Amino acid sequence: MNGFSQDNIPQGFRFAAGTARLKASGRPDFALIVADAPASAAAAFTSNRVIAAPLIVDKQHLSATGGHVRVVAINAGNANCAAGQAGIDAARATCAAAAKTFGCRAEEVFPSSTGVIGVPLPAEKIAAVLPDLAASLAAGAAPFLDAARAILTTDTIEKVAFARFEVAARDGETREVRMVAFGKGSGMIHPQLVPHATMLVYVLTDAAAEPADLNAYLRPAVEISFNRISVDGDTSTNDTVLLLASGASGIRIGANHPAFAAALKEVCTSLARQVVADGEGVSHVIELRIEGAAGDADALRVAKAIAHSPLVKTAWAGCDPNWGRLVAAIGYSGAAIDPDHIDIDFGALPVCRDGARAPGYDEAAAHEYISQREFSISIRLHQGRGACAFWTTDLTHEYIHINADYST
Amino acid sequence: MNGFSQDNIPQGFRFAAGTARLKASGRPDFALIVADAPASAAAAFTSNRVIAAPLIVDKQHLSATGGHVRVVAINAGNANCAAGQAGIDAARATCAAAAKTFGCRAEEVFPSSTGVIGVPLPAEKIAAVLPDLAASLAAGAAPFLDAARAILTTDTIEKVAFARFEVAARDGETREVRMVAFGKGSGMIHPQLVPHATMLVYVLTDAAAEPADLNAYLRPAVEISFNRISVDGDTSTNDTVLLLASGASGIRIGANHPAFAAALKEVCTSLARQVVADGEGVSHVIELRIEGAAGDADALRVAKAIAHSPLVKTAWAGCDPNWGRLVAAIGYSGAAIDPDHIDIDFGALPVCRDGARAPGYDEAAAHEYISQREFSISIRLHQGRGACAFWTTDLTHEYIHINADYST
Repeated sequence: MNGFSQDNIPQGFRFAAGTARLKASGRPDFALIVADAPASAAAAFTSNRVIAAPLIVDKQHLSATGGHVRVVAINAGNANCAAGQAGIDAARATCAAAAKTFGCRAEEVFPSSTGVIGVPLPAEKIAAVLPDLAASLAAGAAPFLDAARAILTTDTIEKVAFARFEVAARDGETREVRMVAFGKGSGMIHPQLVPHATMLVYVLTDAAAEPADLNAYLRPAVEISFNRISVDGDTSTNDTVLLLASGASGIRIGANHPAFAAALKEVCTSLARQVVADGEGVSHVIELRIEGAAGDADALRVAKAIAHSPLVKTAWAGCDPNWGRLVAAIGYSGAAIDPDHIDIDFGALPVCRDGARAPGYDEAAAHEYISQREFSISIRLHQGRGACAFWTTDLTHEYIHINADYST
Repeated sequence: MNGFSQDNIPQGFRFAAGTARLKASGRPDFALIVADAPASAAAAFTSNRVIAAPLIVDKQHLSATGGHVRVVAINAGNANCAAGQAGIDAARATCAAAAKTFGCRAEEVFPSSTGVIGVPLPAEKIAAVLPDLAASLAAGAAPFLDAARAILTTDTIEKVAFARFEVAARDGETREVRMVAFGKGSGMIHPQLVPHATMLVYVLTDAAAEPADLNAYLRPAVEISFNRISVDGDTSTNDTVLLLASGASGIRIGANHPAFAAALKEVCTSLARQVVADGEGVSHVIELRIEGAAGDADALRVAKAIAHSPLVKTAWAGCDPNWGRLVAAIGYSGAAIDPDHIDIDFGALPVCRDGARAPGYDEAAAHEYISQREFSISIRLHQGRGACAFWTTDLTHEYIHINADYST
């Protein structure tokens, strides 16, 4: 965690992590974020029409409290999805147990789950570990990182991001606002949050803000970060991004605070890229830059068609500069295109001009360029001013290995 | 070729195959179908907006001739796509050479190409082998099978289908109408022919029919066969289905001939399933039956979301009955669904009821069932009467291997 320290953790939050024996491996699988007082909250959830039980409960709770959260209870090892009424009951039982432990209303508890779908969550295992975790709650970087690690599934590394900015307070003093985020996600990654995440992300700040304002800040930040990544194109039933503001810095953020908006976009973009970089089996991370589309929506169609093409992703895995597969994906993307006006560059290398092999195309150089772990591909469509940036991955033997052996 | 013999080949067509040195392997890569006289023709082409040069030329030629074809010239080893004007010139040069060789108009030649995208086709190699192939043209099963084999790329086996029916002719005699088809396709398989096909398919019959009638028969046959399969979700730039009627049987097929329509659907469905079964790296072939969707379009959305989900396809590769991944794909398909009213069966085994694990779900039995090379999954959505059948494959290490090393 380069530069990550005690000073990055927003005031007003404590953390704990432990083992509820939900993962077969016996590794940590449960984390708590507890706000000293009810924190203002905004959330974005998956657009999948099959929605995991905790998300159903979260929506009800945010509505009941007008957007306030005391306790976030996150388990890995079980998605608590497609479990019918038993799933809803398990999520509610978790909330009731946490409410009792921390002396708040059940509606102030925000449950999250990630793991295998279709197996009822044994809420009693969570309830059993709550008292010990309550005793271990602590502020600071170490317990924060423990929480970030406890929620991982096929992830290989924890994912955290932070930002700080200073504000001249009303008393003339300069005060600092802190923001940190942690998240998880590696497979089933194509978050389409509504206004769009089994990616789980928790962004914490000690700014003071109204839930409605937090919501307005969260939408565009999610749109340019989590909604612009794909590992496998599978949009999860559990994706969640939660933004909590404790207010403990004493700095009030209104509806138009560019530094806050910038900090939020920065941490969201950082976490989104960390999720892609740790995608299941990933050996290459690709930044796609689409320009000259008829509109931004068309640019996104092209990026997603490429990001979801098994032929393109396997070519990348093989460091194969087979740009014809890119052209084919552009063609079936549904975007308005002119086949004779497509330009493609790998980094600074011209690969395709006017829909055909670029003059002077150097296959060996192209191969060498895309042999790097991270590279970029630029595509110009000459249809208009639509553009987007999108981050995706290759498709490797390791992905197959991970996902052909996950649940059984 | 069980039951496949000389008697299956429609009258009025001759065949030849050879090596134009377009494949690096040096294996046969060029095939000819030559009709004794101009045959009535109907064709369906890819809906990809990037269209290979031969398809552009084919459309012009069918329009110029009112739907008549003398010579079909098919090469493998080069898709002649994304090659700009040079690609169009190469396709035209092939036609000009064939027209000269066979004494017909260039517009009566129907070129097809399959292979790598983005490399100009060396038409002079094709022109060089035409005289020898013209000398070897022959009717019958052996040259037909040679042609079927010459056009393969990553396919492991030739794909042929046939049908026959008898008709009482005007002279009181009973006469036979024959239909045969051959095709290729293994990867980049998600044909969406317009009214939808690097799948190449050639259906030949000795019925006599007007091009417009052939077209009307071809549309619904393509819709329930080639447009209902996917190996990798990549819709090719070269997909083509060509139906040719020589008329040599003397039996005229009008606009409403149920036996002809049935024969065409039979051969198209047979070839479509052969393409899926020989999909790149395939170890499982899955029949999806979606029922109770709000409409047929929604049923197809669900089938395609499942067929294109890497998580579902890798679970199948691992014989893992992880039905939660199916539920997730159903949820993000875009179809109208009620998460609490989804039923899933693996063959006759209840797996999911009302969106949750079916009572009595037997994971070991489900695992055993999907360990078979071919199996079926039925999904009932309880939204309406929309339904579809769809055929797809798993996603295996072998697919990655084939496609990470194909062009370079």
